[in-house]
Amino acid sequence: MIKNDIELLKRGTEEIIPLDEFSSKLDRSEKENKPLIVKAGFDPTAPDIHLGHTVLLRKMRHFQDMGHMVYFLIGDFTGMIGDPSGKSETRNRLTREEVMENAETYKKQVFRILDNEKTKIVFNSSWCQSMTFADVLDLTARYNVARMLERDDFSNRYKDNKPISILEFMYPLVQGYDSVALKADIELGGTDQKFNLLVGRDLQREYGQEPQVIMTVPLLVGLDGVQKMSKSLNNYIGIEESPREIFGKVMSISDEVMFLYYELVTDVPREQINKSRKEMEAGELHPRDVKVKLAKEICRQLHNEEAADNAEAEFNRIFVKKDVPDDIDEYTIPEDEMTDGKIWIIKLLVLTGMAKSNGEARRLIKGGGVSINGEKMTDEDLEMLFDSESVIKVGKRRFVKIVP
Amino acid sequence: MIKNDIELLKRGTEEIIPLDEFSSKLDRSEKENKPLIVKAGFDPTAPDIHLGHTVLLRKMRHFQDMGHMVYFLIGDFTGMIGDPSGKSETRNRLTREEVMENAETYKKQVFRILDNEKTKIVFNSSWCQSMTFADVLDLTARYNVARMLERDDFSNRYKDNKPISILEFMYPLVQGYDSVALKADIELGGTDQKFNLLVGRDLQREYGQEPQVIMTVPLLVGLDGVQKMSKSLNNYIGIEESPREIFGKVMSISDEVMFLYYELVTDVPREQINKSRKEMEAGELHPRDVKVKLAKEICRQLHNEEAADNAEAEFNRIFVKKDVPDDIDEYTIPEDEMTDGKIWIIKLLVLTGMAKSNGEARRLIKGGGVSINGEKMTDEDLEMLFDSESVIKVGKRRFVKIVP
Repeated sequence: MIKNDIELLKRGTEEIIPLDEFSSKLDRSEKENKPLIVKAGFDPTAPDIHLGHTVLLRKMRHFQDMGHMVYFLIGDFTGMIGDPSGKSETRNRLTREEVMENAETYKKQVFRILDNEKTKIVFNSSWCQSMTFADVLDLTARYNVARMLERDDFSNRYKDNKPISILEFMYPLVQGYDSVALKADIELGGTDQKFNLLVGRDLQREYGQEPQVIMTVPLLVGLDGVQKMSKSLNNYIGIEESPREIFGKVMSISDEVMFLYYELVTDVPREQINKSRKEMEAGELHPRDVKVKLAKEICRQLHNEEAADNAEAEFNRIFVKKDVPDDIDEYTIPEDEMTDGKIWIIKLLVLTGMAKSNGEARRLIKGGGVSINGEKMTDEDLEMLFDSESVIKVGKRRFVKIVP
Repeated sequence: MIKNDIELLKRGTEEIIPLDEFSSKLDRSEKENKPLIVKAGFDPTAPDIHLGHTVLLRKMRHFQDMGHMVYFLIGDFTGMIGDPSGKSETRNRLTREEVMENAETYKKQVFRILDNEKTKIVFNSSWCQSMTFADVLDLTARYNVARMLERDDFSNRYKDNKPISILEFMYPLVQGYDSVALKADIELGGTDQKFNLLVGRDLQREYGQEPQVIMTVPLLVGLDGVQKMSKSLNNYIGIEESPREIFGKVMSISDEVMFLYYELVTDVPREQINKSRKEMEAGELHPRDVKVKLAKEICRQLHNEEAADNAEAEFNRIFVKKDVPDDIDEYTIPEDEMTDGKIWIIKLLVLTGMAKSNGEARRLIKGGGVSINGEKMTDEDLEMLFDSESVIKVGKRRFVKIVP
């Protein structure tokens, strides 16, 4: 039974081309009760899925929830070929074993988001491998050079006299032909895929099929709020991280990023998001509470309700109950105050201003009023090494963070 | 036994790239007594070979005479594919039967020039047909877009916003790959093929082979001395025409074209050609005698010595012995002088000024002094129909040509 929610499908997308065909395809699917074929392509290289990828995966899930069939396409054919000229460093040749292994890794991760029952995992090698030279020429006859050179990266490189191998013209054709092979109704991809998705549309038309509608979703910004989320920038939330890690990472983002995430990786209704924002701006709602809700929602999606509750409780136990304020002073120990990288604890308390004198520092330790990272200090003669951030607490309300 | 004559090989070529590699390949072949692989590609469509093609074929023959092996490559692979998009009108899909039939037609003709023993007829389908998509991608990785767009026709069409299908980028790659498959040492082609020949050179290098040397030969001008020789312009000498036709056609060309043909389609030494030209210009040699020599030489090549001699004798019998001068007055009979398309012979002699009166005309015929196309006229009442050119001769030296 197909029941579309066009508004939900549109939410968080960058572009839908063309919008009228999108509506008519959805209408027809409902009328005929015939699921749409929704395609999304994935790289065959070792996948490490993070929250950024879930923007797309969640969109696929929306289609599934409305009764449509998702084709999770692994582009293994080109992956197994790589770039024979060795000129492109980004293309490493994969073996069939590696591809299958990577596919398993994908499955393990993406079924946290996707509906297993409504997902077909397909490999484009299954149709590309049997294509002959004649078939390929047939394919190349259906697209033209000028259009290909319109792709931003191609046109820039062409203008800058940077080489483009003809192989690179073939990749969009392969990707486009995948849509022909699957008879895709809709193809999803990141905004950076827009051109390639449109090639699929053109090729379907050339092969006498109804062209697919393309939908692009934006790249998710990373935890830093500046660059796109990526593993290499270490500003990501891994899809397989523990609820506790996820919760902590979400709590670390800025308020602005928080609302972006609400929009792109939750289904919280927009009115509710806007209401929260207004109340927060009016000082009626503490930002941390709004963030906690987001953190729980993301934990729930990637794990489950219970894990989300536990993560919240754990977070409260460590950070909230212990009452470490959000903004405490930071202190970096000057090199010349250390001996072999270490510092005497009494000296440190004086340097940071936690004690006015060595005598006061000794008394504080004796009285059990000093803890570092939650551990009570008892040895007045301790020489300490600080190679990571540490919080020193003195009495009930005085904190300093030692930053190496 | 290989014995090269570099000067003869160079003669009449437009470009040899690069010249130093050409010399070193030839030297090596002699030293190692190892024949060079000389490649030339031919269209798989119905071939009608004319004198223009023999410029190339004769160059191939030169290599054979020096001991090398010629690969006569029929580009049937792309011919059997055509342009699936139907956008190119020049590409018609051929069946295997048509290809084989055309190959037979080629053989029948080209072995008038080529040495059967040192010719291998090959079809590029024999290696292209078994290539997989992966092999093709491998091929496309070895050439780049900017270089391809440097080809004149591509760059012009790109600038003029005229479409170039990606298929068209594939054809030079196929042709170039043929050189890889054959391990060609030298590839011959018309000047219009220069770009494609160079692609072969590049691809061989990419595939780790010693790159071929390319040799281009100019397009032969047609009998009109203006446009290139071609069947459609009807300014050609067909390779299978009778010695008499060939002889007559050569005798019809201008003196300038005559020397061009001497250079490109004979092996008459250059010094001798230059000597003839000088003597002719000094009035010591009649142009017709120089032309007769050329006509005989071409007849000899396309047929044999005897046929050449016979053609000359025949030509003399009709044109020279009968002493019809080269430039005689032409006359076209006005419509209103004819009845039912015919004219009375007496009237014609007066109209053309061959006789001053009907009386004189009658006397001339009675005296046996009038012939038409070499046939003596005897009937004073004759009504004649002129539907083709005819020469009327009166007495020993007066001529007029009737042009319908």
